[in-house]
Amino acid sequence: MEIRHPYLLFLGDVADALAAKTALGIVDWRPEWCLGQFRLPGCAADAKIPDMTVEEAARAGVKTMVVGAVNAGGVLPDHWVASIVAAIEAGLDVATGLHVKLSDVPAIKAAAEKHGTKLFDVRHTTERFATGKGTKRPGKRLLTVGTDCSVGKKYTALALEKAMRAAGFDADFRATGQTGVFISGRGVAIDAVVADFISGAVEWVSPAAAETHWDVIEGQGSLFHPSFAGVTLGLLHGAQPDAFVVCHETTRTKMRGVQHPLPTIREVIDLTVTCGRLTNPAIRCVGIAINTEHLSEAEARRVIDEAAAFHDLPATDPIRFGMDGIVAEIGKHWGAKGAGQ
Amino acid sequence: MEIRHPYLLFLGDVADALAAKTALGIVDWRPEWCLGQFRLPGCAADAKIPDMTVEEAARAGVKTMVVGAVNAGGVLPDHWVASIVAAIEAGLDVATGLHVKLSDVPAIKAAAEKHGTKLFDVRHTTERFATGKGTKRPGKRLLTVGTDCSVGKKYTALALEKAMRAAGFDADFRATGQTGVFISGRGVAIDAVVADFISGAVEWVSPAAAETHWDVIEGQGSLFHPSFAGVTLGLLHGAQPDAFVVCHETTRTKMRGVQHPLPTIREVIDLTVTCGRLTNPAIRCVGIAINTEHLSEAEARRVIDEAAAFHDLPATDPIRFGMDGIVAEIGKHWGAKGAGQ
Repeated sequence: MEIRHPYLLFLGDVADALAAKTALGIVDWRPEWCLGQFRLPGCAADAKIPDMTVEEAARAGVKTMVVGAVNAGGVLPDHWVASIVAAIEAGLDVATGLHVKLSDVPAIKAAAEKHGTKLFDVRHTTERFATGKGTKRPGKRLLTVGTDCSVGKKYTALALEKAMRAAGFDADFRATGQTGVFISGRGVAIDAVVADFISGAVEWVSPAAAETHWDVIEGQGSLFHPSFAGVTLGLLHGAQPDAFVVCHETTRTKMRGVQHPLPTIREVIDLTVTCGRLTNPAIRCVGIAINTEHLSEAEARRVIDEAAAFHDLPATDPIRFGMDGIVAEIGKHWGAKGAGQ
Repeated sequence: MEIRHPYLLFLGDVADALAAKTALGIVDWRPEWCLGQFRLPGCAADAKIPDMTVEEAARAGVKTMVVGAVNAGGVLPDHWVASIVAAIEAGLDVATGLHVKLSDVPAIKAAAEKHGTKLFDVRHTTERFATGKGTKRPGKRLLTVGTDCSVGKKYTALALEKAMRAAGFDADFRATGQTGVFISGRGVAIDAVVADFISGAVEWVSPAAAETHWDVIEGQGSLFHPSFAGVTLGLLHGAQPDAFVVCHETTRTKMRGVQHPLPTIREVIDLTVTCGRLTNPAIRCVGIAINTEHLSEAEARRVIDEAAAFHDLPATDPIRFGMDGIVAEIGKHWGAKGAGQ
């Protein structure tokens, strides 16, 4: 599954920016892939890129319209269907992360067949995975893990890809969630895979590579989240990371959607090492990424310095303070460009 | 999803008994539900129950024909389709654990619609699960875990249900694999659930119950199996067991299907407690079940006595030596009938 870019981002007529966060995430990380946005009357979101019709997009060279918004209830309203059909008729592929499958909508399916365009349902991969084998693959891997869901694992992985590339590493972000798949053009929404194939799907996402190459793999959930820890463990085993970064958000008191308290960063490091050793005995933590958006600059600095000192690891807020410390830590263990010392 | 019994077991024309192991497992544990077997010419398996046509089965009161065999390649050959259609025409529901969905076979789908019978694809549940909540539910729960796949977790759970009932406990086996679902008439093949819903599906399998009631939940995989540990962890969190039994097979040198060595029983106990505490802080190991079929009686006794002494827990081979020790251990902690002391 390779989603062709450049993209036209479909925002529909969503009521706020949050409903278009997938589109906004794509623009943040792959602005060069996003030639325009397609908004319907009343749309309250704005990706701050040129508005385009599907015909204008096709003429500009767009290959795929990404439905980067979710309306209330997650359903696909009729007027969105009409827009998707129009995109197909203009010759564009269409990709979504909606729960409903595009090919289950008769008008969309018929249009795609007639015009020979491709439909990508990121939450319903048609890829057939093998079960995970757990054997060590060539190449280096880094995984972002977390004290909870939605604490910045995707953001940290993307920021790390950027910083590692800037430092001369051969590094690629590997997506395991829907927004990440649009940002990288490939990958799999790992939480939508059949349970037997979690680790196998991650082995597919991050295949064997040159020994000096780094895959920076987007983590999901938390080993301590009672709803999703199974996904997190399968992802850890499939990723067989050499290195991992723990992501944390300072103001969270309960884990997302449940009543459980957050684990400590120490607990996450320890259990990740305990479980991760199964497929990579040399696994080690190389840093801590703390989302401090709810703290003042001084408080943020204090929290990060304390975490760094307590764990004897580089700590940062990727947005406020960058990734240099973690990149240096990787260089310390695997050579300046990850190419051995 | 409740599969109605009694059953007619369809064995097809499989080439050996192993290909009919699902049917044989059902007969072992629910002989009173199995009125007959339906075999095609050349069938090399025999469940040792009366051969019946679908019409004879219907007259005898059979409600469901269970396709309890798998032919080479796991596909559904045309002559099996004809037998399934015949069962539907005789008024029977049909249940399978095959990878192919019955309702995807046009002739079967049409017959079921025409005759108003139900099709159960155990590997393709239509039940919609919620994500796991992880909050403690009333009732007691025991989970079987293992050093590997296929080391006797289902057998141990069923033997424990039987022994606990004989000792006066209010105990029910809860199925998480396809054969188990046929044996209990309900449950879910947990490895076929979408990854996000593993623990939620187990919460559905083992719902809130009276405080003196015991669910004996069939485990899957192993926390140390690089292909399936995610399933095992989600199952552990959803089951939130008060008690667990570790299952082991003595002659295994590598984990099933992969190159990894087996963990020790000690490692399985420790990691199960570490991870299981998340949804049940009082989790404890109550015994060890060792499959000694490849050992002599004297060797089996020695291995079991050593394990019991080393771990200070009751150990047994459920087939050779019964479950009395483990039932006594449960009684020691939760009262003679599990009803509190």
